[in-house]
Amino acid sequence: MNKIVLICPERNDVSKWVETFKKENESLTIEVYPEDTDREKTEFVATWNPPADAFEKFPNLKVIASMAAGVKHITSKEIPKNVKVTRVKDDYLNYDLSYFVLNSILNYLRNMPLYFQHQEEKTWNRQAYKRPKDTTVGILGFGNIGQAIGKVLHKNDFEVLGWSRSKKEVEGITTYEEPQLDEFLAKVEVLVCMLPHTPATENILNKKLFQQLPKGAYLINVGRGAHLQEEDFLAALASGQLSGAALDVFKTEPLPKEHSFWNHDKITITPHTASITNPKTIVPKMIENYNRMKNNETLKDEVDLQKGY
Amino acid sequence: MNKIVLICPERNDVSKWVETFKKENESLTIEVYPEDTDREKTEFVATWNPPADAFEKFPNLKVIASMAAGVKHITSKEIPKNVKVTRVKDDYLNYDLSYFVLNSILNYLRNMPLYFQHQEEKTWNRQAYKRPKDTTVGILGFGNIGQAIGKVLHKNDFEVLGWSRSKKEVEGITTYEEPQLDEFLAKVEVLVCMLPHTPATENILNKKLFQQLPKGAYLINVGRGAHLQEEDFLAALASGQLSGAALDVFKTEPLPKEHSFWNHDKITITPHTASITNPKTIVPKMIENYNRMKNNETLKDEVDLQKGY
Repeated sequence: MNKIVLICPERNDVSKWVETFKKENESLTIEVYPEDTDREKTEFVATWNPPADAFEKFPNLKVIASMAAGVKHITSKEIPKNVKVTRVKDDYLNYDLSYFVLNSILNYLRNMPLYFQHQEEKTWNRQAYKRPKDTTVGILGFGNIGQAIGKVLHKNDFEVLGWSRSKKEVEGITTYEEPQLDEFLAKVEVLVCMLPHTPATENILNKKLFQQLPKGAYLINVGRGAHLQEEDFLAALASGQLSGAALDVFKTEPLPKEHSFWNHDKITITPHTASITNPKTIVPKMIENYNRMKNNETLKDEVDLQKGY
Repeated sequence: MNKIVLICPERNDVSKWVETFKKENESLTIEVYPEDTDREKTEFVATWNPPADAFEKFPNLKVIASMAAGVKHITSKEIPKNVKVTRVKDDYLNYDLSYFVLNSILNYLRNMPLYFQHQEEKTWNRQAYKRPKDTTVGILGFGNIGQAIGKVLHKNDFEVLGWSRSKKEVEGITTYEEPQLDEFLAKVEVLVCMLPHTPATENILNKKLFQQLPKGAYLINVGRGAHLQEEDFLAALASGQLSGAALDVFKTEPLPKEHSFWNHDKITITPHTASITNPKTIVPKMIENYNRMKNNETLKDEVDLQKGY
């Protein structure tokens, strides 16, 4: 029997995923945890934020497919030996994140958050602006997605710098590797965090990092909320070390009503919307990996569990 | 004597213009109307919104140079016979308008006005979004500036249509000429008004035009406030024929506090900031035309007074 089990207790759109799988391949049986059956027959699960003890209930599990780009929601839990983890790498994810970042930077250069506030107050007050061609953007985390963002920004005249653990080569973009972080940060006017969430990157956006940026730098976080040390961040805004920030991800989502970020006039908040995973583009890739598993072929977009991404 | 007179009663940044002229050419005398002297010796004036009777005071006037892209502020007044009018055509104007329009469209596609409102209310509510590559933008007024906007949008995957009085050829963009307005409007999801202000274009954004757009189209006005028939516009928003608008120009500027646009939740208002004229880039071009006038050479960027642009 060909079966995939979906483990995504938090998602309210699971029926959309089930439907999409059915449409793509009628012969597949799709079951939703914890109502799934015959667990010893399940070799492939697709998941978003699974319960900590979910995987151990599948004695013959071979593949865990993440339903999103991030995999920390999987790797933070016990992964049975010899089980492979795959993540989502699709062009729309890159495309949507790229245009979200471009939009966030243009809003910053053009003072749009201030103009929205001025409109509330019926205030007419022209502000000077900066041009893309005069602005240096640094992308912290220059893997697959970071490079896609960099290319869209480069195409729009930004000076683009990319930093990643191992050095990358992308035309028109100056790249830095791990030990050059200081040199990279010193040049960045707009910092885009697009890092994976690993123990090494947790709270990486902290006081020490902010101090290495030029005074008045702007922060865009499209990585994970866990990257941001919140007290250090608020202090950097208060001192003017950071001039503002656009945050799309938060330590707790939805961002709690009582959180101080909501009413901070230097922070623009969006509800984790930079890229909304579309089952239509992801499901065919999961089915392809399912078939590869069945044929003992190499999986696509497999996660290196040592590195965590 | 080499002299240029500045006639710009409304501008509070006239000293910046005087300084810039001095920096560019020390031997030029710059005087500011109405404190200027020896009017019979003045051949060249640079102006923004001159008083109706200003030009007749200069018996030997040869050239009126607009300090902005628009020239309606000049052509709406009596222009002495044989006096030439020039306008501003500079790359930063095109560049700034292009990125302003791109930013406005991305904000529309990503529901940013709604998210700014949600942030005020501490509301977390993810919205579906549209992609640049799935969006058709029509540029009404496809001259020098309209084409520059079109190229930036085309580079960012938008389907771009351009409409102008006489047909233009731009790679990758579908162009329409005057009699094809219906055909053009029927395909447009986002309409960008970048028309010159002439008697023929006044109130062109009216009920009849809105009805020719697909239901739910979005309007961006970076032309002039005079293009918009305000009652028809509000009716089109109320009926849903238009889903919203970003307006940067208004019939009266600053937009009066009591105007109903300020608090309309489907309208985004910016204070005529799409492109702020920078004396540094404009003044050298005015001096070049001054020298051309002195040498009896053809002027650059001369306005066709019949057409009005």
